[in-house]
Amino acid sequence: MNDLPTDRLRLPWHDLNEQEILDALEKSTLVWDQVFAPTSVMHDENGGPLPMHQVATHIAELASKNNRVTAMYGMGFFSTITPAVIRRNILENPSWYTAYTPYQPEISQGRLEVLMIFQTMVADLMALDVANASLLDEATAVAEAVALVRRQVKTGSTVVVDKRVYPSSIDVLRTRCEAQDITVILSDDLVQDIHDQDPFCVVVAHLGVDGELRLAEDCQVLCDAAHNQGALVVATSDLLAATMVRPPGTWGADVAVGSAQRFGIPLWYGGPGVGFMAVRQELVRQLPGRLVGESLDADGNSAYRLTLQTREQHIRREKATSNICTSQVLMAAVAAFYALWHGPSGLEQIASTIHGATRRFARAAIREGYTLGSTVFFDTLVLHCPGRAQELVNQARDKGIGIRLRDGDSVGITFGEGLIDQDLDSLAEVFGLEPGAVGDEEDDLGIPRGEYSGEHHDLHPVFSSYHDETSMMRYMRTLADKDYALDTGMIPLGSCTMKLNPAQGMEQISLPGFTDIHPYAPEEDTQGYRELIDQLEKMLCQVTGFSAVSFQPNAGSQGEFAGLMAIRRYHESRGEVRRTCLIPTSAHGTNAASAAMAGLVVVPVAVDDRGAIDLGDLRAKVDHSGEDLAVMMVTYPSTHGVFEDTIGDLCEIIHQGGGQVYVDGANFNALVGQGTLTKLGADVAHLNLHKTFALPHGGGGPGVGPVAVKPHLADFLPGHELLGDSTGEVASAPYGSAGILPIAYFYMAAMGHTGLQDSSQMANFSANYVSQRLKDVFPTLYHGDNGLVAHECILDLRPMTARTGITVDDVAKRLIDYGFHAPTMSFPVPGTLMVEPTESESLEELNRFCEAMIAIRAEINAVEEGRWPADDNPLVNAPHPAYRLVGDWTHPYTREEAVYPMGINQGPTLGGPRGKYWPPVARIDAVYGDRNLKLRLSDEVA
Amino acid sequence: MNDLPTDRLRLPWHDLNEQEILDALEKSTLVWDQVFAPTSVMHDENGGPLPMHQVATHIAELASKNNRVTAMYGMGFFSTITPAVIRRNILENPSWYTAYTPYQPEISQGRLEVLMIFQTMVADLMALDVANASLLDEATAVAEAVALVRRQVKTGSTVVVDKRVYPSSIDVLRTRCEAQDITVILSDDLVQDIHDQDPFCVVVAHLGVDGELRLAEDCQVLCDAAHNQGALVVATSDLLAATMVRPPGTWGADVAVGSAQRFGIPLWYGGPGVGFMAVRQELVRQLPGRLVGESLDADGNSAYRLTLQTREQHIRREKATSNICTSQVLMAAVAAFYALWHGPSGLEQIASTIHGATRRFARAAIREGYTLGSTVFFDTLVLHCPGRAQELVNQARDKGIGIRLRDGDSVGITFGEGLIDQDLDSLAEVFGLEPGAVGDEEDDLGIPRGEYSGEHHDLHPVFSSYHDETSMMRYMRTLADKDYALDTGMIPLGSCTMKLNPAQGMEQISLPGFTDIHPYAPEEDTQGYRELIDQLEKMLCQVTGFSAVSFQPNAGSQGEFAGLMAIRRYHESRGEVRRTCLIPTSAHGTNAASAAMAGLVVVPVAVDDRGAIDLGDLRAKVDHSGEDLAVMMVTYPSTHGVFEDTIGDLCEIIHQGGGQVYVDGANFNALVGQGTLTKLGADVAHLNLHKTFALPHGGGGPGVGPVAVKPHLADFLPGHELLGDSTGEVASAPYGSAGILPIAYFYMAAMGHTGLQDSSQMANFSANYVSQRLKDVFPTLYHGDNGLVAHECILDLRPMTARTGITVDDVAKRLIDYGFHAPTMSFPVPGTLMVEPTESESLEELNRFCEAMIAIRAEINAVEEGRWPADDNPLVNAPHPAYRLVGDWTHPYTREEAVYPMGINQGPTLGGPRGKYWPPVARIDAVYGDRNLKLRLSDEVA
Repeated sequence: MNDLPTDRLRLPWHDLNEQEILDALEKSTLVWDQVFAPTSVMHDENGGPLPMHQVATHIAELASKNNRVTAMYGMGFFSTITPAVIRRNILENPSWYTAYTPYQPEISQGRLEVLMIFQTMVADLMALDVANASLLDEATAVAEAVALVRRQVKTGSTVVVDKRVYPSSIDVLRTRCEAQDITVILSDDLVQDIHDQDPFCVVVAHLGVDGELRLAEDCQVLCDAAHNQGALVVATSDLLAATMVRPPGTWGADVAVGSAQRFGIPLWYGGPGVGFMAVRQELVRQLPGRLVGESLDADGNSAYRLTLQTREQHIRREKATSNICTSQVLMAAVAAFYALWHGPSGLEQIASTIHGATRRFARAAIREGYTLGSTVFFDTLVLHCPGRAQELVNQARDKGIGIRLRDGDSVGITFGEGLIDQDLDSLAEVFGLEPGAVGDEEDDLGIPRGEYSGEHHDLHPVFSSYHDETSMMRYMRTLADKDYALDTGMIPLGSCTMKLNPAQGMEQISLPGFTDIHPYAPEEDTQGYRELIDQLEKMLCQVTGFSAVSFQPNAGSQGEFAGLMAIRRYHESRGEVRRTCLIPTSAHGTNAASAAMAGLVVVPVAVDDRGAIDLGDLRAKVDHSGEDLAVMMVTYPSTHGVFEDTIGDLCEIIHQGGGQVYVDGANFNALVGQGTLTKLGADVAHLNLHKTFALPHGGGGPGVGPVAVKPHLADFLPGHELLGDSTGEVASAPYGSAGILPIAYFYMAAMGHTGLQDSSQMANFSANYVSQRLKDVFPTLYHGDNGLVAHECILDLRPMTARTGITVDDVAKRLIDYGFHAPTMSFPVPGTLMVEPTESESLEELNRFCEAMIAIRAEINAVEEGRWPADDNPLVNAPHPAYRLVGDWTHPYTREEAVYPMGINQGPTLGGPRGKYWPPVARIDAVYGDRNLKLRLSDEVA
Repeated sequence: MNDLPTDRLRLPWHDLNEQEILDALEKSTLVWDQVFAPTSVMHDENGGPLPMHQVATHIAELASKNNRVTAMYGMGFFSTITPAVIRRNILENPSWYTAYTPYQPEISQGRLEVLMIFQTMVADLMALDVANASLLDEATAVAEAVALVRRQVKTGSTVVVDKRVYPSSIDVLRTRCEAQDITVILSDDLVQDIHDQDPFCVVVAHLGVDGELRLAEDCQVLCDAAHNQGALVVATSDLLAATMVRPPGTWGADVAVGSAQRFGIPLWYGGPGVGFMAVRQELVRQLPGRLVGESLDADGNSAYRLTLQTREQHIRREKATSNICTSQVLMAAVAAFYALWHGPSGLEQIASTIHGATRRFARAAIREGYTLGSTVFFDTLVLHCPGRAQELVNQARDKGIGIRLRDGDSVGITFGEGLIDQDLDSLAEVFGLEPGAVGDEEDDLGIPRGEYSGEHHDLHPVFSSYHDETSMMRYMRTLADKDYALDTGMIPLGSCTMKLNPAQGMEQISLPGFTDIHPYAPEEDTQGYRELIDQLEKMLCQVTGFSAVSFQPNAGSQGEFAGLMAIRRYHESRGEVRRTCLIPTSAHGTNAASAAMAGLVVVPVAVDDRGAIDLGDLRAKVDHSGEDLAVMMVTYPSTHGVFEDTIGDLCEIIHQGGGQVYVDGANFNALVGQGTLTKLGADVAHLNLHKTFALPHGGGGPGVGPVAVKPHLADFLPGHELLGDSTGEVASAPYGSAGILPIAYFYMAAMGHTGLQDSSQMANFSANYVSQRLKDVFPTLYHGDNGLVAHECILDLRPMTARTGITVDDVAKRLIDYGFHAPTMSFPVPGTLMVEPTESESLEELNRFCEAMIAIRAEINAVEEGRWPADDNPLVNAPHPAYRLVGDWTHPYTREEAVYPMGINQGPTLGGPRGKYWPPVARIDAVYGDRNLKLRLSDEVA
C-alpha cells in the first residue's frame, strides 16, 4: 500500500504492506460482505486520491465564486469581527477543534472552563440565573424553550408567538409543535391573545424581525398577564443589545433565548453559529442540552464537569422531550473568548457604535422624508420606499452592500460590527441621504433614554482580565494544555469515530469567501456555496446510494428528527397515519428521544444474547403494530460493532409491514466506500459528517447531520423560507452549518474512491487488531458470524468487575495516567468499554494502547490477588495529577507506578522523554456536583 | 489609557489608567528627552491605531495585486508544496514562531531536535559528515563557504568560481571578497583555471544556473586537481536532485552548500528561505553559524544543545570571520519536517516526477527542432529559440506560466513540485510541442543512467517514522510541548525584545498572493509586493528620519555588514580610504565581527564606570585615527539599557573627525514613535524587524535587518541583479525576506503614531518598574542621569555570586522551575542578567516575574546562611524535570520546594492550577558536549 503518490491524504496503514497488515491481524483473510458495491466519488482516473493542493485550489475557487458584500440583511445573522487571536489559537488550533465532548471531565477542564464562562456570560447579560452550555442555533433554541415550558407547566396545548420573532424560529417551532400536537398562534397583540387563547407559553421578541425594540415597561405588562394565567414567557433577545437595554431577566421573562453568533462567529452562510438559553433558577432541571457545573475532585479542589446528565436524552430515551446530545462547544468558545477579549466596556462600545450608526442613518432618512417601520430600535431599520425597494436593493448591491428586500415597498437594514465609513457613505448615497449633515444630537430615535441600562453590565470580573493579546494567547494555551485532544494521543471512542481532521481541509473554512457570506444573500452572490453543496450532495448520494440530501440538520440528532418527520409526512401524504417506531434495545438513546419528539410511539425490539436483533421479536412487533408501523430505526453496523448479516431480512420484514427503514449513520465509517446503504434496504439515513467525513468534533460541537433519502422521500426533506417552502424546517439556516461543509468536500475529494475504501477497511482492520490483541485480558463481547468485529469492539469488563470491584470508571481514569483518552464507557452495554480505533491510528499507537490495557489488567490482577488493597491502588486513585507527587506518599504503590506506569519514556522519543499528559485535577465527584449545583463562575475566581 | 476603540492592537498597559501606572512606578513623572519629535506613520485622523481588520483587508488587497503564475523561473527558487500539516502546526503556531534562539537548551529541546534532524538530513543527502543548523540563504552560504575555506587553508587570495553558479551567489561572494581583498575569478574551465590561478578555493556548481548537471566523474577530476594544489572545493548542490544523483560527498567536495527552500518553504518573493552547509569532519570547527550537538544532562540523559559556541561571532568579536548570529530556525524546521513527512521514498518520488516532466518536455522540444543548452540536466532546461524568446515568455505568461528570459534568443525553464497536467500542456502549446506524443522511453536525456544513485539514500531511519498526519501532528505537538515560547510566559531577554507577534499580522504571510510569488517574476506581476515594500520603506523612514531603506539584509548582522559597506564605499566614492571603525567595549560582539568582515579595523572605545561611553577616550581614538576614521558603531539606547545624553556630542565628534555614525538599531524599541535616529545624528542604522516591529523570532530565525541611511549614503545600499546593479549585494533575493514584511507593515499601521509612542513608553515603564521592584534584591547596574533605565535593566548578581557561589546560570535555570525563560545572561557585563520586559507584558506577569526573582533571592540567602549546602540546593540542581519527583528524594529541600516554589497555583487560575511548564531534561553539560561532538542523530533514535 506504500505506493501512494505524494501530497495525497495518507492513512498510517498506507505505510504497511499487505503482509504486514495480515501479520498484525494474525489472520489470512477478512471476508467482506459482497452486498457492497464500489462507489464512485470525485477521484483521479484510477479512482485514487487527488493531490491535496489541487483539491484545495479547487475549493478556493469555489470560495471566490461567492460574492462578499457588506451584509446588512439581518434576520438573526450579523456582521462581526472574529479577533485574530481567537481565529488562530482556537478555531485553527487542533488542540481545540480535535477535542471530544467533555465526558471525561478530568481531561477536559480547559473547555469546561470556557463553557462555564459562556454560561456566566449569557446569564449575566440576560440577567437570569442560569444558562446552559449553548444550543445549536436561535431557531432550535426557541423550539427547545417552548418544550421546556411545556415540561414545566405540564398542561395546555397552545403557544402564543409574537409575529415579530424571526421566521426561521417560527418555522422550526411549527415543525416541532406539529409533531407534538401543540397549536402555534401567531400574534400581533400578545396581551390580547394571552387573554383569549389561554396559552401555556408566550414567546415574545425583545427585538423584532424588523428591528422594533419592545420596551421594558411593555414587556413587564405582558409577563404579568402571562404569569397571571399560569403561562411562562420565553423572550428572544440579543446579547449585544443587552449591554444597552434592560435585559429579559429584569422585566419578568422566565426564559431568554437567542443567538451568540454576533460574538465573533463568522456568518458562514448561516452556520455553524450558536444558540443560547438562560432561565430562572426554578427551571434549571428542565434545561435541555449540556450544562457545566462546578464540583470537587478527590483532593478537594474545585473542578468542572457536565452536570445533571440525568436530564439528557441518552438517559431518558423515549421519555426525553429534547434529543439534543451536543452543544456548539467550539462556537461557544469563540463567543466566550470574544466577550473575554472585549470585556464589558468593549462590548458596550461595539453596541453603541452600531446603535449610533443606526440612529444617524435613521435620522438622515427621516429628514429626507422616509418613513421608518419603528422609531424604537437597536440595530435594524425598516425603510418604506413605495415601489422602489427592488431598485434600492440593486443599487446597494452594486456598491457592495447587501440589504433586505422585505417587499416591493420596503427594505430592511441591519447594522453590524466592522462597518466602515465608506459603507455608511455608500448606503447613504443609495438612499439619497446626507448623513454628514446630522450629528449626534439627542432625540427619541433608537433606544429611549429610560431603556439604557446606564452602566456596565454586571459581568463577572473574569471578563476584565484578558484584554491584551499576550495575556489572551497564554490563557488559551493554559486552557488547551489542560485538555486531551487528538493532537495528544488516541481517543478510541466507540461510535464517535475520532479520526484525523486533515489540516488542509480545516484551512478551507477560514477562507473569506466562505466566512463572510450571509444566508440571506441572493443566489447570484452564493454561487460557490451552492456549487459546493450540490457537489457534496452528489458525492454523499454516491457513497450512500440515496438520491437527495438535506444539509439543514446541524447535528446528528436533528438529522434523526428530520428523517423521522420525513417518514411521518410521507405516510400522511398517502393518507396513512402511522406512529409506531421500532427501535432495538441496543440503540443509542437519541434514537428514542428523536422518535418521541417526532410524535412517534417507541416500541423496543429485543436483542439476542449474541447482541443481534432478534428477528423473531421483530416479526412479532411488526405484526402487533399492524397498520400503525411507521419506521424501524437501526444502526449499521450495529451499536455492538458487528455487521449483522440479517440486515437484508430486517429491511424486508419492515417493508412488508408497510414501514420505512431508517439507518442511523453513526457507524458509517465502517463501510464507506465499500457499499451503499440503499443496497442494504434503507429508505433514509442521517450521516454524521463529524464522524465519517472528517469534520472535527470541536470539543463537543458543532456537528453536522445531513439526512439522506430515497426518491420517494425527497419531497419531505426539511424546507426553509429561503428554499421556497418552510415545511419541516429544523434549523435557522437553509443549509445548516454550511460553513464547515468544505471540510467534508475536501476529505471526500482528497480520498477518492480507493481512499474511502481503504479508510473503512483499515478502520475495520484496526478494530479487529485491538480486539485480538486484548482477547485474553478484556475479551470482546460480540462478534459477527465470521468471528470478526466491524470498526469497533466492546471489551467486556463485567466479570472482572464482579470479582475485583474495579469498575470501567477506574480503568477509564487509569488510562489517563497511561496517556490515553478513555474509550466509550458503558454504552451500549453497562460495564463495558467500547473501542473504536479508526483508520487514523498507526500500528505503533494501537500497540501503545493495547500495551496500556494489558498493563492495567496486570494492575487489576494485583488488586484481585490482594497485593494492593481494593481501596488504595493506582486504579481507584486514578488519575494522578502531578502535584500529588510532592506531598507525603502513603500509598502501597510507588510514585513512579502512579504516574509513569510504562516507564518515563512512554512512547517514541528522540532527544528525551515523550511528553506526558498531566491531568490538572484528580477524579471528580459527580454526585457532589449534582447535589451542590454551581452553574456560574464563582465570585472568587478571576 | 483605556478608551481605545475595539479592534485596535492593544497593549496590556492600555487597561491601566495613568495613575495606576504611576502608582506602579512609584514615580511622579518620567522625563523624556525633548530631542524626540513626534513621527507620523499610517494612522487614523488622530494619529491613533487603525482597526486591525481594516489593515488586514488593505494588506489582502496588496496580496491580490500580485499575479500568481506557475513559477518556472528557477535561479535557485523553486515551486514547492508546503504540506498543510506543517503550515498549520509549525508556521502558523505561536508555540513555534514565538520561541527564542535556543540558548537555554533545557527549555528548547523541541526545536533543537528539529535542527538536529535538519543537520542529519543535509549531511545524509550531501553524503558529507556534518552539516550546520542552516544559513540564511544560498548566496550567503556560498560566501560563508569560501570564508570557511580561507580559515582552513590560511594562504592564498584567489577563489575560482564556476560561471554556472547562480548570479546572486556570485554577486554576494564578490561583495564579501571585495572587503577581504580576495580575488574572484569566474571560470568556464575549472580544471584549467585551478592550474593557472592557484586558488585556495574552488566553487563548483553541481547543478548550473542553466540546468546543466555536472557528472560525478568530471567533478572527481576537478576535486583531485584542486586538492593536488592544496585548494579545497565548495560545491553548490541541490537536496532534491541529490536523491537521484551522486551527491558532492561521494566525489570529493569538501564543502557542499545550497538552499533548502524547495523543501516546503513558500517562494515568498525570495525569502525567507534557508541555506545549508555540509562539510567533511576535519572542517567542523570552521563551520559558521549555529551547530546543534548532543550532550548529557545532569541525570545522564542525552539532550541537545548549541555546541562549539566559541566559534561564534559574539565570542570571537573582531577575530570572527563570520558575523552570522542566527540560523533560519523556523525555515529549517519546515524543511526538516518536509523531509520527515515525505521520507526517502516520497522525496525520490517528487524528484523523479520533476525530472520525468523535464525529460519529456526536453524530448518533445528536441523532436520539434529546438536546441537545448544541455542534455544533461535534472529540472532546468535552456531552450534556444532565436529571436523568439520574448514572444514565448509573453505567451507563457498569458497562460499563467512564468519562464525565464535569458536573452533575446533563449529561455530558461525550471520544473518544480506541484505542476499539474494543465500547466505542462499549456507550456507545450506555447512551444508548439506535442508532449502527449512522447512516452517514458529510455534515452540519454536528463540524468545519465550511471548517475542515478539507484536506491534510496541512506537517510536516517527517523525519516521513515512519521508519514501520516495524525502521527506527524502529535510529534509536532510533543516537540512544541518541550519548548518554552511566548505563549507559555514571559521571555525577558535584554536587547532581544521578545514582544507580541500579533496573530492578525502573522496571518498575512500565509496569503497565497504573498507565498506564491517568485523573486524573478516580472514587475507587472509583483505590484502588491512593490507597493508594500515602498510603503513600509516610507513608514520606516518616518520613524527613523532616514531617507532610504534596503530590505535586502535578511538578518541584523547582514544589515550591519551592508551598512558598513555602504559607508566604506561612500568614503571611497570621495577618494578616501578610511578603515578605522570605533566600537565601544560594551558593544554586541556582532558589531566587531561585521566590521572585520567589511575589512575595517576595529578600535575599541572605553566605557566609564557608569557604563557610558568615555568621551575623553573617544576623542583620543578619533584623533589617533586621523584620516583613517571611517565610522563609529554605537547602540542607542546603549547596550547598558541607558539613554546616554552624550549621544549628540558623540555624533558631533565623529562627524568632525570625518567619520560616519552607525547606530545599531537593536534597542530601537525603546524610542520608536518618540523620536528619530537622524535627530540624534546617525548616518546609517540597521533595524531588527524581528525586534521592534513585531516579526517573530521563529525560535532563532528568520530575522530581517533592513539598513536605513541618510541621502548621501542612499546610492551605496545593496544592489542586486534584479535591481539593475548588483554592487554590494548581500543576499540571494533583492528584497531579502520579503515574504514576512507584511507583519511589520501590519504592525506599524495597526499601531499608528500614538500606538508606537505608547509602545516605547510602556516598554520603558516596564523596565523601570522591574528595576525598581528588584532594586533591593538584585540592584540595577547602570542608570541614566535621571535615575532611570531605558527599556531594559542589567541586574547585578556579581556581589551575590562572590559571596555565595550561586551563578547567573543557577538563577537562569532556577527561573525555569518558576515558569520563566531566563533573561540575557552575562551580556554585556559578565555575571549579570539583563531584563527587557517589553511593552507586551501585563503588570500581572511583571509582578509574577519580580516575585519569582525575590523568591530566588531568598533561596540564595538560605544557601548563604548555610541552611542549604552550596552543592545541593534548588538553585544548583535546577531545573527540576518531573521525573525526578518519582525517585528517592535525598535533597535538603522538599519536592514541593523544587518544582512548585511559588505553590501549586503559580499564577492566575479559574478552575484549577495554572499549567506548569515542565522542563523535559535536567541541566545540560556544555563541556561534555563540546568534548564529545555528536552532530547527527544517533543511530538508535527513531
